[in-house]
Parts: sequence; C-alpha cells; structure tokens
Amino acid sequence: MITGKNYIGNQLSAKGTKVYKTFNPKLNIENSNIFTEATSEEINEAVNLASTAFKTFRTLSGKRKAEFLNAIADEILALDDKLIKTYCSETGLPEGRAKGERGRTVGQLRSFAELIAEGSWVEATIDTAQPDREPMPKSDIRKMLIPLGPVVVFGASNFPLAYSTAGGDTAAALASGCPIIVKSHPMHAGTGELVASAIVKAAEKTGMPNGVFSNINSSGIEVGAQLVKHAGVKAVGFTGSIKGGRALYDLAAQREEPIPVFAEMGSINPVVILPKALNNRGKALAKTYAGSITLGTGQFCTNPGLLLGIKGDALSSFIQDLSNEIVKIEPSCMLHPNIIGAYENHKKNAISQPNLTVVADYESDVQTNYARQTIATVEGKTFLENPTLHQEVFGPFSVVVQCEDKNQLEEIISQLEGQLTGTLIADDNEVANYPEIISAMQNRVGRIIYNGVPTGVEVCPSMVHGGPYPSSTDSRFTAVGIHSIKRWVRPFSYQDWPNDLLPNELKNENPLGISRLVNNAQTTKAL
Amino acid sequence: MITGKNYIGNQLSAKGTKVYKTFNPKLNIENSNIFTEATSEEINEAVNLASTAFKTFRTLSGKRKAEFLNAIADEILALDDKLIKTYCSETGLPEGRAKGERGRTVGQLRSFAELIAEGSWVEATIDTAQPDREPMPKSDIRKMLIPLGPVVVFGASNFPLAYSTAGGDTAAALASGCPIIVKSHPMHAGTGELVASAIVKAAEKTGMPNGVFSNINSSGIEVGAQLVKHAGVKAVGFTGSIKGGRALYDLAAQREEPIPVFAEMGSINPVVILPKALNNRGKALAKTYAGSITLGTGQFCTNPGLLLGIKGDALSSFIQDLSNEIVKIEPSCMLHPNIIGAYENHKKNAISQPNLTVVADYESDVQTNYARQTIATVEGKTFLENPTLHQEVFGPFSVVVQCEDKNQLEEIISQLEGQLTGTLIADDNEVANYPEIISAMQNRVGRIIYNGVPTGVEVCPSMVHGGPYPSSTDSRFTAVGIHSIKRWVRPFSYQDWPNDLLPNELKNENPLGISRLVNNAQTTKAL
Repeated sequence: MITGKNYIGNQLSAKGTKVYKTFNPKLNIENSNIFTEATSEEINEAVNLASTAFKTFRTLSGKRKAEFLNAIADEILALDDKLIKTYCSETGLPEGRAKGERGRTVGQLRSFAELIAEGSWVEATIDTAQPDREPMPKSDIRKMLIPLGPVVVFGASNFPLAYSTAGGDTAAALASGCPIIVKSHPMHAGTGELVASAIVKAAEKTGMPNGVFSNINSSGIEVGAQLVKHAGVKAVGFTGSIKGGRALYDLAAQREEPIPVFAEMGSINPVVILPKALNNRGKALAKTYAGSITLGTGQFCTNPGLLLGIKGDALSSFIQDLSNEIVKIEPSCMLHPNIIGAYENHKKNAISQPNLTVVADYESDVQTNYARQTIATVEGKTFLENPTLHQEVFGPFSVVVQCEDKNQLEEIISQLEGQLTGTLIADDNEVANYPEIISAMQNRVGRIIYNGVPTGVEVCPSMVHGGPYPSSTDSRFTAVGIHSIKRWVRPFSYQDWPNDLLPNELKNENPLGISRLVNNAQTTKAL
Repeated sequence: MITGKNYIGNQLSAKGTKVYKTFNPKLNIENSNIFTEATSEEINEAVNLASTAFKTFRTLSGKRKAEFLNAIADEILALDDKLIKTYCSETGLPEGRAKGERGRTVGQLRSFAELIAEGSWVEATIDTAQPDREPMPKSDIRKMLIPLGPVVVFGASNFPLAYSTAGGDTAAALASGCPIIVKSHPMHAGTGELVASAIVKAAEKTGMPNGVFSNINSSGIEVGAQLVKHAGVKAVGFTGSIKGGRALYDLAAQREEPIPVFAEMGSINPVVILPKALNNRGKALAKTYAGSITLGTGQFCTNPGLLLGIKGDALSSFIQDLSNEIVKIEPSCMLHPNIIGAYENHKKNAISQPNLTVVADYESDVQTNYARQTIATVEGKTFLENPTLHQEVFGPFSVVVQCEDKNQLEEIISQLEGQLTGTLIADDNEVANYPEIISAMQNRVGRIIYNGVPTGVEVCPSMVHGGPYPSSTDSRFTAVGIHSIKRWVRPFSYQDWPNDLLPNELKNENPLGISRLVNNAQTTKAL
C-alpha cells in the first residue's frame, strides 16, 4: 500500500503539511495518492540515523551487505504487478519498459552483491615491513577502500527504477558501506515509496541498522538543498538536468566541508557520419537513427541530439530519408506535463534560431502529453556561431549539421561541451583518413561508439557512463557498472597495525581469499 | 645557471616587470638572483602550448613517457651540487635533508616510470560482444584510463623537490599523459628553475612535444588564480595551507566548467596515548615525540600537533618528561621569515587562549629565523569548547589534551576536522578495550598508525597521504604513491571499436602483455 509518507529510517513519518500528487500523463489526470513533503525535523532525523547507522554498517562484511542487496532485489520482485502498474501510471511509459527497467535494477543490485561478496574490489594493497632497511627502517603499511559516510541520492525523472530509489547510485553506495538517504523524485513518488518499502523490508530481514536507508518526499527544491548542506551528509549522487545538478554541485562546494557531488547531467551525444558510410548505407542509417532519436520518446540521456556530416548530395539524401522515416513513427507519451512543456519550449527556442531549417515535424494530431518528433538542419558555420544550438532539447528532437569540410567538422567537435557519448558512423576503409576527428571526439566524451547508436547503456564493468563537464560533474568516475562504487569510497592506510585488529581484507592470512597487491605483486595468497 | 626567467614550454621568457628574490633564512639575507613574474600573456601561451602538446603527449606509449620521466630523474641528479646548494640557500634546511628529498623525488619519478612502462595501471577492462543475446545483442565494450588534460601544479613551501616542480603531483600527472604547468613557489624559485631546466632538457632529449612542461614564476596570488581559471586547464594539484588550497578550490568550483582540485592542506595529526602505554613507557615516548614534534623544525604536514591522553599521574609525568626532552633539542631554522612570522603569530594566538598552560618553551637565545619549540596543555573540556585550539600551528608546537575519560576522548576525536593521520600509542593488551576510539579515529583520518610517529611518509603503493577535508579537498585520492596517478585520469569506453584503431592496451592480441579484466576475469592473455 502506498501511504504517501516518508521513510525516516524504518519508520513511516508524515509530520509536514505540504502535500502533492503524482500525475498520469497518458490519461492526463492526477493519481490519487497524496504525498507529504518531509519537514526539516524529519530530514535531520534521517541524517542523524544515517550517521549512527554508518558506525555499524561500514564494519559489516561484504557477505552481509550482499545479503542485504540481494534481499532488496527479492523484495522489489515481490512487489510484482503493483510496482509495474504504479510505475506506468506515474510515467506514461509502457509495461515492457517498466519490466525491463525493473530487470536492470535487480541486475545492478545483484551484480554489486556479487562484487562485495567476493571482496577484491577494496583494492587491498600491502607493503610489508623492512626493519633492517637503511638509512631508515620501513613500516608495514596496508591500504584498502572504505566508505565515505551517508550519501544522498536524488531520484531521476526518466528512470524511476534504475537511476532512482534502489538504482545504480543507491546500489553502489550501499555496497560500499554508505547509508543512503533518497530524495524521491516527485513525479514518481508512489513508485519510489514502493521500492523504499522493499529496501526497508530487506534491511529488517537481514538485520541492517536502522537508518541505513531513508526515503524523503519533496516536490520543491528546498528539501534537496537542506540535505546537501547537512554536515552529516558526505557525498551526493544525482541524475538530471544541468541546471539542477549544477545547483547541487555549487551548494556542496560552498559548504564549510565541501563534499563530492557526482551528477550525471545533460548531453547531446554527437553522431558523426562519414561520407562513404552515408553514400553506401544512408537509407538504413536514416531508419536506425529515426528509431534511436524517438526511443522512449527521446527521454534518454544518451539520446542522439546532434548529427554531423559533410555537406553534399549524400548528406542531403540522408536528411530527406531521416525526415521520411521519423514521421512514420507513432508519437508517444512523455513523462509528465512539465517534461513535455519543457520539450515544447526548448524545441521552439531552438527552431526559432536564425538560419535553421525544420525538415521534419510530425504534423498529425497527437494526444495530450504526447511529443511530436522534429528534425532540423543548419550549416556548420551557423552551428559554430550559436551556442543555443549546442544545448540539449530533452525529447525526440535532433539537429543535423552540414559541415563545409573535415576541418570544420573537427572544429565543431572540439568546441562542444563535454558529452556522455560520441558516435562515429563510418565504412571500415575510410576511418583511417579521419584521425583528428576521432581524437577530437575522444577529448569531449566518456564513451565512443563505432557504427552503432548511443542509446542503450549496457551495465557491465567496461561501461563508462559519465564524461567531461557538463555531462558529469566529475569525469574521473562512471555512474554505471561495478566500478561506479569508487565514487563513494576513499583509500585508507593502516601503518604497523596489529594483525588481529586489521580488517579481514588486510590480515596476513587473507581469510577472505581476495586478490591483493602484496609488495607490488597481485596475489590471493596469505602472507 | 639560474636566469630568473619563466619556462614557457622549452623557451626561457621574462616579459614582465614585477620581480622578486628568494631569501636565505639561515644567513638572514636575500639571495642574489632576480626572478621575473610571468605576465598574463606568458600564462596564456603556456596553457595554449600545453593544450596543443596534450594532443600528441596523450597518445605516447607508456614506454616513451617512462623514458621522459627517467630522463628527468637523470637530469635532476646531473644538477648535482648546484641544486643542493641552491636548495639549502633558499630554505635553511640542511644538506642531508636536501639530498634525502632529492632521492625521494628521483625515486618517485622512477617508480611512476616503472608503473607506466609496465602499463597495467590503466585498468583495461573488456567485455566482449554477445551478438546472439536475447532480447538484445550485447556490444563489445572496452574501457581504460586516459589523462584529463593540462594540469597546474603549485609548488609547496616545505618540500622544494618532492612536492614541487618535479615532485609527486608532476610525476603522477606526466605519467598519466597530462602536460604540466608548474606555479613555482616563490620561496625557492631558484631550486624550481633548476629542476625546470632539468625537465625541459629531458623533454628535448626524449622528443616530447613543446609545451608538455612550463614553469611559471610568481610571488603573489594573481598568477595562480589566472592559471586555475584558465579554460585550458583541466585539473589542479596543490600542497600548502588550508587558506590557499580552499581559495583555489573555490575558484575551480566557480568556473563555467568546474575542474578537480586535489589540495593537500593542513593537519594536526592527533596522537592518542592509552593509559598502559603511558604507564609502561612514558619516558621513552616522551623522547620519541620530542623528536617527532621538532623534526624539520616541525615543518611537515604530518607533524603531531595534538597529543591526547586520559588525565592521571602517568599523563602528568609524560607531560613533564616531554617538556624536559623537548627543550634539550637545539632549535633549528625555519624556511623563511614569513614562515617563522606565521609560526610566532599562530603560537601566540594559541597560547593566549583561556585555560591553556604552557609547559615547555625553549628560552635561550636563538638565531634569527630559528623557531623555539613549545608544548602546551589543556583539559579536554577546554579543547572541546575552543575551535581555535583545533587549528594547525605550522612549526614545532604541540598541545597535550588531558581528557576526563574514554568518552571525552572519543568525543574529541569525533569532533576534529579531517586529518592526514591519526596515531594510537597502546600496549597490545589494552587496545581491545578501545574500539570506539579506533573507529572514531578511522572516520577522521587517511592513515592510522600504531605505536609509531606520523612524521615520515613512505612512498609505496599502500600509502594514503590525504584524508577527509580539510586535510585534502578530495579524500577519494592519495597524493603519495603510484595510485596517486588516479587523480589525473578518467575512464573512457570504446564500443564496437575496430581492433586496429583501439589503443594497444585494449587490442585483442594484448601486445603490451598487461593485466586486464576480460569478461570479469583478470588475465594477461590475448583474446
């Protein structure tokens, strides 16, 4: 049952008076549940509980934390149809997507569980003593990764499951030993509460300390700001707009004790289509890209918002083909009236720019909250001179830039802001002629794709989801995959520490059997 | 020869009019060389050269970059006596220290050279394609660490070699493939120029691109600020005061594109002495700590500025013994009149706090710029209530806090700011009774030491030199040891990229023979 209350640790709580509802964009009506925004007092309580829980949670073994993560996955699955129905009613997304995202979420939880149950992720590093070294004896020093402390996670509008309550940030931070306070996304507060109830149930079943998880409701920005400014909070995870992410980053940087903010923000994901590929398979590419641009109503952070080619007949034909293909696709529903409102506004602003031509615009009537897909085109020079065209239009909208030549193409790529992805569409025999393009692209993105589409972010160890600012606030980390755990940890050294007081990861006998760097050689052996 | 000019890339340049000299604190006279502060134009040129150099430097193999680092080490050694003499004349530090620090600097360069010549540090991670996977085929994705771009390194006053021009930050960032612009520390600009000349010579001998290194003179704060705000700069390394580090952090956070600042700042390095240890070996501990507090005139960031014990006869005797021991030590010279001036001021401010007792103060006459060592003591309550006593006094000054009991001791530790180190002095049979103390200390520091002294930072893979703010601005990284390279890199993914266009680290055949995570198993085998 959805209560509309906050979870302050394991307790449901609704002391506030400010309330709000979620919205069904497909039916264009409010949902019935009433959510109560957390009070300042409730926020303080959640953070204080998290700080206390941290003292024990961080000392638990990887196996115990893995039990907790697996139990969360089990409890999410046990929510069954109720979760899927709530998800759909709060997002307008189809059931298939809901189930797919649930699978991804459960998969992420289980992959972190596997990682920490095995245990080598802590990067245990041991340098043994050399008491006879001259001129100074060398101490025994041992290092491992330890958790930072309570982490605040902001739910994402476009991924109610995989990047929200029990999503990637939460899974990674819990795995590392950090308690979590989720600032639930107001557009899917019911989905959030259901998942929160699964986490709380899992925490209780596996004996986790109260406060290891809290779920905070809020429809405005004050609650999030209070959380980020709270001295007890030690790191922040965010997925959303540049404006929102930057605001949190600024608050965190201005604290007396600045804390890391890992915000995954906007991206227009440039796609470069080289001439031979355009010539040889322009029609097929047009069809593929019409699909990628409209996938999930364009509501992916890896949506291809910018296609770059070199002027000519092949590019003109491609633009025509893409236009023909994209209007064949049935428009679909966006997540919320605010999201479609923003889409319409940003698109209107983009297409009102001088020297821009709209080449495809879905014209038939659509249901309320459904987005019309649009393709526009500009010359390279126009694009270079107008930064407005470099901004993301969140939704099924793309601009095709017709560059004069290879040099202008390189210049445009070099001047783009940081991006999550860059894609190169090429024939194998032409790539070698464009080393500067590849080099320029690599310098602006976190992931580079060859003859594919940027949408679809595989959850695997080799994935980088992140990139130069503003695609993320800290390009030194990925937000997806097991290595995303590194956002929430710090290295810690023990010098000459007695063996029986060391954590198991660093004991002589290597009781966990993990892989360690011992005197500069990687080994699973005991000392 | 010391010219007093900047190195803008490989070229000596002195277009400015603002000049300054360094100072010999031991002789209390100015040194003769005249240094010219860099102009805005020279700074822009250095950054632009670095940006251009980055395009080729980042593509060089680990072996080529290793040649460069080893050549820097060779050229530093070739400076021979000239370097040592300049170092001593600009710091007042003894020749033995100069040679020791040179050894450390050369050792750091060679250890990074070894790391990158071997090559596994890039954390190559490969997930091969699964074209038949249902419901969606899986792409081939490969990840490795790549450099961020031009890095600005600020020289440290107290380590003219090991944490300055070719020190740890520079060695790590060059190893990763980032060009370096050093903002030379004005107190040892001559030492800085000599080392810079060694780097430039090494760069030329090993065919590195011009701009891979620049050395910028400045005696004020404007030049550093301009560097940090420059759009071409992608990261900053700093070792120094909290005030200085925080100012740079704030500038970097306020940029349109915020960049990471890794600042290693102040620390008072708490030392907890448990009762049995005090009882059984108080006299020996007093002697050891008198040495640690005065080592290098207290000018180490790991200097023990705070000793914590539980009130009683043993602690009183220890305070007496420490007082007796410390005044036996001959005072030594500080780095600069400004440094001793700050020491005197901060010490005066500390000892003027209410309810503080000075128990030892070196009283005999000392030479100009020599520091008198001082020990003070306060009750736990006084310390808890007065944040001024929590601040670092850079120099040979320590406060002994007499806590009421174990609980007050834990409270004090919990309320300390972040620290580089924490030390526990204990007898083996009493440690088990103080789990909360150990836990509280672990939460506030980057390295925890058992029955030792915090001074002496071993350069080895297991070392953490860093910690919670303000000991560093980003506790997720260490400033010392090979893993400090991770401050200057970001992960990068290739999706479905053609094998022959991949970097060698990620090619099927594993031509470098490095260790890689392939489909979740660590291996050096080819695919």
